[in-house]
Amino acid sequence: MKIFTAQRSAAVSAYGELRLIEQVRGWLGDVTPRAPFGIGDDCAVLPPARRAQLVTTDPVIYGWHFDDAIPARAVGAKLLKRNLSDIAAMGGRPVAAVISLALAANTRVAWLRDFYLGLADCARRFGVNIVGGDVAQAPAGFFGAFLTLHGEATNSRIVTRQGARAGDRIYVTGSLGGSRLGKHFQFTPRLAEGAWLAGRPEVRAMMDVSDGLAKDLTSLTTAGLVPALCGPAVPVSPAARTSAERSHRTALAHALSDGEDYELLVVVRGRADAKKFEQAWRKRFPRLRLTLIGTFAKQGKLPAGALRLADYHGYEHLR
Amino acid sequence: MKIFTAQRSAAVSAYGELRLIEQVRGWLGDVTPRAPFGIGDDCAVLPPARRAQLVTTDPVIYGWHFDDAIPARAVGAKLLKRNLSDIAAMGGRPVAAVISLALAANTRVAWLRDFYLGLADCARRFGVNIVGGDVAQAPAGFFGAFLTLHGEATNSRIVTRQGARAGDRIYVTGSLGGSRLGKHFQFTPRLAEGAWLAGRPEVRAMMDVSDGLAKDLTSLTTAGLVPALCGPAVPVSPAARTSAERSHRTALAHALSDGEDYELLVVVRGRADAKKFEQAWRKRFPRLRLTLIGTFAKQGKLPAGALRLADYHGYEHLR
Repeated sequence: MKIFTAQRSAAVSAYGELRLIEQVRGWLGDVTPRAPFGIGDDCAVLPPARRAQLVTTDPVIYGWHFDDAIPARAVGAKLLKRNLSDIAAMGGRPVAAVISLALAANTRVAWLRDFYLGLADCARRFGVNIVGGDVAQAPAGFFGAFLTLHGEATNSRIVTRQGARAGDRIYVTGSLGGSRLGKHFQFTPRLAEGAWLAGRPEVRAMMDVSDGLAKDLTSLTTAGLVPALCGPAVPVSPAARTSAERSHRTALAHALSDGEDYELLVVVRGRADAKKFEQAWRKRFPRLRLTLIGTFAKQGKLPAGALRLADYHGYEHLR
Repeated sequence: MKIFTAQRSAAVSAYGELRLIEQVRGWLGDVTPRAPFGIGDDCAVLPPARRAQLVTTDPVIYGWHFDDAIPARAVGAKLLKRNLSDIAAMGGRPVAAVISLALAANTRVAWLRDFYLGLADCARRFGVNIVGGDVAQAPAGFFGAFLTLHGEATNSRIVTRQGARAGDRIYVTGSLGGSRLGKHFQFTPRLAEGAWLAGRPEVRAMMDVSDGLAKDLTSLTTAGLVPALCGPAVPVSPAARTSAERSHRTALAHALSDGEDYELLVVVRGRADAKKFEQAWRKRFPRLRLTLIGTFAKQGKLPAGALRLADYHGYEHLR
């Protein structure tokens, strides 16, 4: 279904703001509580929070993050999943979200309904309440949905990107690459995995892979260190292999730089018992692999055979 | 200064995402804490909250909320002030904000700098931390900034829009109308006033005036009631009078329907001692008037002479 329509009766402009918000409330159903805990007052009200809180924000924008080939339900689900992945990356539990919509007056109501149904399904699955938002008009041809997600720590600590030391091991969940083949709409945010990892004393730092492993790893790399990746160890997804068959780049290049994998990148203390840690993972998550892909070395001491990551640019926005 | 530029070296695309985010961090200065409490990790971390929390989201979009005639600093300040007004309307105190930017690659860096400087000034003034955000590319000609603001209750209770009863009095702070003459960039969010009002036992319900008094009043009107406004009592702003001189509509019409006043609309219990309440207000806020503009009557019992609000449509989006 195309997102915009020339038929005025099928467009959001036929509703006007107030009736449209009533529709949104209906589409969201039980994932939006009654005001003031949900849509309908000046602010949404959230209960007091005993633990440290997490806040993240990510959008989906037509023509950039999706196009008419993607089902509206998948777009709605992805909007929430992108943000869930950030909560997972710090070991948190999601709680509530608000959505700011900017849309052209000729946005199709049926498309928007499917978008919200997909979002609501996903919110139900992960226990998130949609507590409020805003609808604003945008120029013709524009649709953007900007979600802010609130979560809270599941453990006494929050795992950040900071703290990697020389000798620490680098792990990644699942497999990487091939997002351009649509994989980036089908991923599962690693919430249970992130919460479990944050509770493990072996884990020093963590993040999710959104812009590609090669670029994202730099965010985990403490000054004076360099990531030493073992190329053959990097778990390459079937979609990355298919991408490689269709492009002039290798499957490994796709795995390192396609981005939008939404897997977890985990730094484990060098002195930790790696076998015990890996066994505990396999026992808890037998169906998702956790792969050792390298270590952090001191700068200037990159082991022979380690990947030169500068050769694999991750995704850079605004270029 | 125009927001978009044809000169590539002056545009955000000359920076790329990572360097641009570094710039943003510099522009924000001391209003953005270090990661993970500010920009730089997967999520921003907020401390535990003892009181009920408030969340609201409102954007500014080029061509819709502002144009090239408005200084970038005023746009940045307004983005935050719009959201602050929602926190004020429930009697809360602002805490922290995240901003999701969607911008064309040819957005002028100097414009964006001024936007963030205006935002930072306003954040400093009202004690808000800017703790995170996102930058995403949008089609040519588009700029939208979507802010989500977190606050907390200042009192044991939060004042909602619900609960008005027959005989309750309706008050409004300041004066209304004329927003199209630029008043909507110069307003002050009524945070101190909202917090004080939320602590008064006389106050039953509250909201801010964003879409125009005539439309917004319906949100305070309990089923079975009707607002009975006294036309001559409505405080008309000088800008509304100037607007009336330039249009075919009266100053009262501008006051009732221009919108973007960001004043507080307050419902006071009918049985409360109105004199005592008004005296306490004048003592606490001697420089801002609080005006009694009407009462809530039972439906079908609108007193003679009361305004027919249906004649004054407030602002409706997406029409």
